[in-house]
Amino acid sequence: MGEIGKPDFDGAFRRKLEDLIVWRRDVRRFRTDPVDGTLIDRLIELACLSPSVGNSQPWRFVHVEDPVRRAAVRDNFIASNAEALQDYSGERARLYARLKLAGLDDAPVHLAVFADRDTETGHGLGRRSMPLTIDYSVVAAIHTLWLAGRSWGLGVGWVSIIDPVRVRADLDVPEDWILVAYLCIGYPVEEHADPELVRLGWQDREEMGKFVLRR
Amino acid sequence: MGEIGKPDFDGAFRRKLEDLIVWRRDVRRFRTDPVDGTLIDRLIELACLSPSVGNSQPWRFVHVEDPVRRAAVRDNFIASNAEALQDYSGERARLYARLKLAGLDDAPVHLAVFADRDTETGHGLGRRSMPLTIDYSVVAAIHTLWLAGRSWGLGVGWVSIIDPVRVRADLDVPEDWILVAYLCIGYPVEEHADPELVRLGWQDREEMGKFVLRR
Repeated sequence: MGEIGKPDFDGAFRRKLEDLIVWRRDVRRFRTDPVDGTLIDRLIELACLSPSVGNSQPWRFVHVEDPVRRAAVRDNFIASNAEALQDYSGERARLYARLKLAGLDDAPVHLAVFADRDTETGHGLGRRSMPLTIDYSVVAAIHTLWLAGRSWGLGVGWVSIIDPVRVRADLDVPEDWILVAYLCIGYPVEEHADPELVRLGWQDREEMGKFVLRR
Repeated sequence: MGEIGKPDFDGAFRRKLEDLIVWRRDVRRFRTDPVDGTLIDRLIELACLSPSVGNSQPWRFVHVEDPVRRAAVRDNFIASNAEALQDYSGERARLYARLKLAGLDDAPVHLAVFADRDTETGHGLGRRSMPLTIDYSVVAAIHTLWLAGRSWGLGVGWVSIIDPVRVRADLDVPEDWILVAYLCIGYPVEEHADPELVRLGWQDREEMGKFVLRR
């Protein structure tokens, strides 16, 4: 395709893109109304344009629709959440319990996203010394889907308090697929520019200076 | 901040965003002219608005400016590349050698991005059963920087053919930081909507159907 049709990204677009980055949020409270399936398909198509190591395209998307399978994932979350609670005590535990960490019950779309670590696609290029780049490629795809979804008014919640091996079994997908994210997708009840964990007093944003070194 | 000032993302913005996703590319051929440091600072600020597990903000950005350190990274790449070449033979090896996999010599900005896996920030929330979510958070930040950079005309090349432990030592950063990406950043010599590895016949895009299951 070369340089033909190269788009011009102007200041107005960049300002909106910054808004999108600010207003993309991890959403836990969803409206239950359905999302058009063709929109989800389009978001997955866009996600598949993300960078991947050696062009390995290791992303695998599993629509979780069967109520029995959804219930298994919900049970998995509840068990993992109970285990995680043991790590906290007192005020922090109470806060944690209040956080309503999963939109599993309300989100109309559930998407489990896996990395196919053994894919032949890409012929292994670029991942010999850094094998986790396969997972990283899948994260890039998830983030593309997230940002594009937000531009359509959709919210995404990434559930990580879950046993990934059990998800793989409960969804009956190949054994060499590794769960990277279990995503809840739907229209958010409310929209915010600040993270829920900041609003709830769990963890503030840190100062930028902490993150940058020069060498 | 609540819903105050909530931006409206319209169809025109969404079309441009899709263009951005299509035209974001892994760039290997850079112009050598410098990039304004305040632009890089801004991109890192935006990256720090990315999702992170438990709001742990585990991203650590290291500007690599010292010519001696850059030479060490270059040597690291050359050694890793030579090792990787042993995995291929014949036509594929020749193709591989032609791929000019690193923009290390030309890109004016080098940014090593690490994950602080032991950070206390976020109080461990959400990563007990999926500890790699710390790395995944850093990938989301890299992808934000990549997309925002492209909206400013910048190209990013992700170097993964490199020994990550040696990078950590050569850059003298804390031992519990894990290298996620070594990024070359600068203005690209040419722009494309298709991956270089597709143009060079290494690996085509796969059909969407391969990536999606229903359960």
